[in-house]
Amino acid sequence: MTFSSIPFTHDVALDRALDAAINNKTKPLGSLGMLESLAKQIGLIQQTTQASINDPALIVFAGDHGVVAENISAFPQSVTWQMMENFLAGGAAINVFARQNKCALHIVDAGVNHDFGPRDGLLDRKVAYGTRNFAQEPAMTAEQCAQAMQSGADLVAGLTGNVVGFGEMGIGNTTAAAAIMHAITKIPVAECVGAGTGLAPSGVQHKQKVVEAAIAFHAPVISVGEPLGILASFGGFEVAMIAGAMLAAAERRMVILIDGFIITSALLVAARLQPAILDYCVFAHCSDEHGHRQMLAYLKGRPVLQMGLRLGEGTGAVLALPLLQASVNFLREMATFDSADVSKKSA
Amino acid sequence: MTFSSIPFTHDVALDRALDAAINNKTKPLGSLGMLESLAKQIGLIQQTTQASINDPALIVFAGDHGVVAENISAFPQSVTWQMMENFLAGGAAINVFARQNKCALHIVDAGVNHDFGPRDGLLDRKVAYGTRNFAQEPAMTAEQCAQAMQSGADLVAGLTGNVVGFGEMGIGNTTAAAAIMHAITKIPVAECVGAGTGLAPSGVQHKQKVVEAAIAFHAPVISVGEPLGILASFGGFEVAMIAGAMLAAAERRMVILIDGFIITSALLVAARLQPAILDYCVFAHCSDEHGHRQMLAYLKGRPVLQMGLRLGEGTGAVLALPLLQASVNFLREMATFDSADVSKKSA
Repeated sequence: MTFSSIPFTHDVALDRALDAAINNKTKPLGSLGMLESLAKQIGLIQQTTQASINDPALIVFAGDHGVVAENISAFPQSVTWQMMENFLAGGAAINVFARQNKCALHIVDAGVNHDFGPRDGLLDRKVAYGTRNFAQEPAMTAEQCAQAMQSGADLVAGLTGNVVGFGEMGIGNTTAAAAIMHAITKIPVAECVGAGTGLAPSGVQHKQKVVEAAIAFHAPVISVGEPLGILASFGGFEVAMIAGAMLAAAERRMVILIDGFIITSALLVAARLQPAILDYCVFAHCSDEHGHRQMLAYLKGRPVLQMGLRLGEGTGAVLALPLLQASVNFLREMATFDSADVSKKSA
Repeated sequence: MTFSSIPFTHDVALDRALDAAINNKTKPLGSLGMLESLAKQIGLIQQTTQASINDPALIVFAGDHGVVAENISAFPQSVTWQMMENFLAGGAAINVFARQNKCALHIVDAGVNHDFGPRDGLLDRKVAYGTRNFAQEPAMTAEQCAQAMQSGADLVAGLTGNVVGFGEMGIGNTTAAAAIMHAITKIPVAECVGAGTGLAPSGVQHKQKVVEAAIAFHAPVISVGEPLGILASFGGFEVAMIAGAMLAAAERRMVILIDGFIITSALLVAARLQPAILDYCVFAHCSDEHGHRQMLAYLKGRPVLQMGLRLGEGTGAVLALPLLQASVNFLREMATFDSADVSKKSA
């Protein structure tokens, strides 16, 4: 697939107009902290001082991973499709939080190792019944990778709103994300690998060995440094769809809500392809998954929330939505010093 | 005033029932992080595994401070009543966020140096036209302090919901709060004093000297260690009302949302009177006001949000409400491993 280039958000006049609008509100200068930087960022993305959040959506992409054959997860692979059933029935955490925050929720089969058949509420974009085991071979072909990215981009093209977040489900996908993280950032594998859904320390050590061996196996591709080669080497289909969806969202000038470890691994790929995408990203939450904090540091991303979540599904993204809403609301609705006849700082 | 004792929240059987309910939800153990500890705390407060957030309310108390004569604020005293007008007109940050999060908002004149006259939406509980200058004399009498605390308690008694937060407005009140903080915690004054609404470094130094001199002046009262003596020495009327309101809220088994520096200074007083109040407190936000982080550490409070706000008004408390809602929603609405037929962790 080809992506047209992402528009730059910088605009000197608008930048100044946003600063003036924010600083004229009836509050001490800078006293709304991160809400002020969010309001400014969203204003620059939307090219207006009257920023708004319209029809936010979260797309959950699910895929299975051949690398589970290496025994790197605390849960069996069948949990991927079982949790998809849970999403479709409305009983998972992401369903609860999306309902609460009035966020549309779309559930996508990117490549789950299960036949769902035609189902209301399920978007079938299955590339294959799971990736191949990247300990032994590339997780996917270049064609599969391109197909997955295109599917993700097409889904975003169908959205009506101006904010999108992404979620994921896939037993084994913290292992794939850790490998991508190392291959893109060169941060030592030991700092990229974590407990995932709850491995014991011995399990984490084993997972680290699996990733180290896979990094060695795929060294020729990694050394080329081409992000799509790295993505195809480790997968998964859900990560590739998310990377494609992110690029399409930035092209459409949408605010992109970045959730946890897996989603940020997709962003590492997307940002290597088009660094301008980072201007569109709001980092919703710093996950407790080992490695996420360093991913954020690498991307210079400051998280809105730090609540120790490590669930995935896009939960952090949806939980941050009311704070994005607050940032545009203060910009639109607060009185100014002049309109409210409040004295400004004296000194 | 007298306060009946605050009920203990601990209940071994309910504690276990809440752990079981949380751990049976379809998610890796502990993966909802702080939302899990919030759900458990609210369940223990409400004595149920079916916790809920009903009719949340925020009460903003405003008062003026005689210590402004010492030139310790970046804004003139008239901003207190001007901002009250802004609250009444719906144009302040707290109005915007309360509307967004469907939180009832009550505005109280605790002791502003201004005649508002009878006004729709203004609760007149004025103790006096501002406190006296605590650099030279006690900010209030013991009778005024008791009256203010009783007014706060009475206001809480009129609420219908089960969650209450507090906000404040009062030019000079970070100076009073810093003095209270030092007198209660013995943390060095330099670590208690900050920029407030935006003092330059030289202004912060001057403010620190004013507080140090006042601490020396009131040393006899401070050395007794009686929290109401300390509260009366430094004020303000809004701080005293908030302390009384907090104690009444805990007696009524309400969840208490603790906002920033001023509100936490009131809690330091309330918790010295009745330590059991802390079981009812959710720390909504760690403020950027110098000293708040140490207040939280002293109280062993972990903040829900850390967004660099330093505005007051109760903004941090109202912004945290959707996350409290998320914590009870997951407890009430998520499927369990059994109900959703999802496999549990294998190892």
